Amino acid sequence: MLGVHLENGIVEVRDIPRPVRPRGHALIRLLAAGICNTDLELQRGYYGFCGTPGHEFVGDVVEADEFRLLGARVVGEINLACEVCDWCRRAMQRHCPHRTVLGIVKHPGAFQELFTLPERNLHILPDDVSTQSAVFTEPLAAACEILEQIRIPCGSRIAVLGDGKLGLLIVQVLRASGYPVSHYGKHASKLAVSQRAGATTHIGEPPAASFDWIVEATGSSAGLDAAIRMVRPRGTIFLKSTVHDRANLDAASVIVNEISLIGSRCGRFEPALELLRLGAVEVLPLISATFPLAEAARAFEHASQRGTLKVLLEG
Amino acid sequence: MLGVHLENGIVEVRDIPRPVRPRGHALIRLLAAGICNTDLELQRGYYGFCGTPGHEFVGDVVEADEFRLLGARVVGEINLACEVCDWCRRAMQRHCPHRTVLGIVKHPGAFQELFTLPERNLHILPDDVSTQSAVFTEPLAAACEILEQIRIPCGSRIAVLGDGKLGLLIVQVLRASGYPVSHYGKHASKLAVSQRAGATTHIGEPPAASFDWIVEATGSSAGLDAAIRMVRPRGTIFLKSTVHDRANLDAASVIVNEISLIGSRCGRFEPALELLRLGAVEVLPLISATFPLAEAARAFEHASQRGTLKVLLEG
Repeated sequence: MLGVHLENGIVEVRDIPRPVRPRGHALIRLLAAGICNTDLELQRGYYGFCGTPGHEFVGDVVEADEFRLLGARVVGEINLACEVCDWCRRAMQRHCPHRTVLGIVKHPGAFQELFTLPERNLHILPDDVSTQSAVFTEPLAAACEILEQIRIPCGSRIAVLGDGKLGLLIVQVLRASGYPVSHYGKHASKLAVSQRAGATTHIGEPPAASFDWIVEATGSSAGLDAAIRMVRPRGTIFLKSTVHDRANLDAASVIVNEISLIGSRCGRFEPALELLRLGAVEVLPLISATFPLAEAARAFEHASQRGTLKVLLEG
Repeated sequence: MLGVHLENGIVEVRDIPRPVRPRGHALIRLLAAGICNTDLELQRGYYGFCGTPGHEFVGDVVEADEFRLLGARVVGEINLACEVCDWCRRAMQRHCPHRTVLGIVKHPGAFQELFTLPERNLHILPDDVSTQSAVFTEPLAAACEILEQIRIPCGSRIAVLGDGKLGLLIVQVLRASGYPVSHYGKHASKLAVSQRAGATTHIGEPPAASFDWIVEATGSSAGLDAAIRMVRPRGTIFLKSTVHDRANLDAASVIVNEISLIGSRCGRFEPALELLRLGAVEVLPLISATFPLAEAARAFEHASQRGTLKVLLEG
């Protein structure tokens, strides 16, 4: 069967052996997958990754222990937790210190015709959510995570920095929950998605000390400085950029202005699936291109070009 | 009258003119004042400070508009807010963007025989709080601020990093509120104060991923890294060090582990005064030496030596 192999920055599609399904896992046939910034960073050498990437996927269950899963169209939580440690017992599997992560840490990813994932990680898709839309479940869950971490008072205006894929999803999630949103980006074409969701959009530098709530999703470490400049005293900044470098922090401003910085990563799938089912977010305009799995190398190349939004692989 | 003049790192006691009392301000005669790390940093050149420092004080009111203040022994909030802006109207005077700050920003400080402060900033001291203890009101209020910013669940063990003056006050405030505290420092003699308050004390590197709540009060930017190493996923770190440099932040860990960093500065005086009145904190062991105001230069020199805790000036 076909599978992507990533090693030393080279993306190759190889003929690889069909995976063996461990007990309690499902064997899943890929329908569609999304290339995430994290995949591009794996290609650039973060984590010394070697193997099959891919963690945003929709697939059909081919084999499973649980009868209800057989033949079902599913998405899956990407963290494979141990389920026995203190974190797992506190329902914080996404922070299990023993976890592996689909296509990122020690578990082969979804960019292959068949792959495995624990059955408890799977969510059966409602019929009225299309496969292409459902590829966005995982990044949409990451966007929803913000609202699970802290209660933002109703009616609070929230600034979102960055008009990449995650920024556009975050704006829509916040709008779907009724928050007024000011979206700061660089590309009028991308900001148009946020405008349709009812956000006010801006190109250029945001004003200083103007927001109590800010989501930093620029994907660059410079975004943190911009956020600290534009937050008001006692304000809160969510850190959503996947940054691998160490950041240069204006600690004096954080302390003097009593700012809160909140790191934010993956989220639960349930609220994301509900938003997709209700049609409360618009994800299809975020797809820049679709490639067959066999052309994964071209797909990665396309995804890494500036201005590209989501690139899909189809099984 | 005598007053300290600080310019280009030189502390001098000069004969300076008696200050003019503006309407709504009290004229205060210094009884005792504390030299704070911030004063030492002003001496090192931060803020380009030139003038009279001093913001931790106890004094007698000599002149005032309000009758009840005349002759009273007082302490005072150090932020002089405009009282008309949006922040002030939200009772956040300590963040007023137009504020001046006693002995720090554009308002002459307390290291002089007589000085002025708005009457609304003053708190009359209870008779059973000694003048030497009351000098600690301002830093103790800064320690109390942590508990005003966020609700820490009862019984949560809190780690405090740093056994300087502020660290020792923070430990005692947390103990007085019933929290179990683990105090990490470098000096057995200082940690003894925390031990008497019921904290467990440790010299050396704290274990990784071991605390949900951490207060970083080492006064050094390296403390932030130590705190990020020792915090558990989804944990909270209060930033209490007065750091003027930019800090090198392990942003990846903050995001992946969804850590909250909360900047924390000055606090309300009321809870601090109540702790002093109840005798719930032990501040006198934190006094390393007392000098007359006329010997302020020697006092600054003493205060800047490693291992020194609080140095007082007496009016």
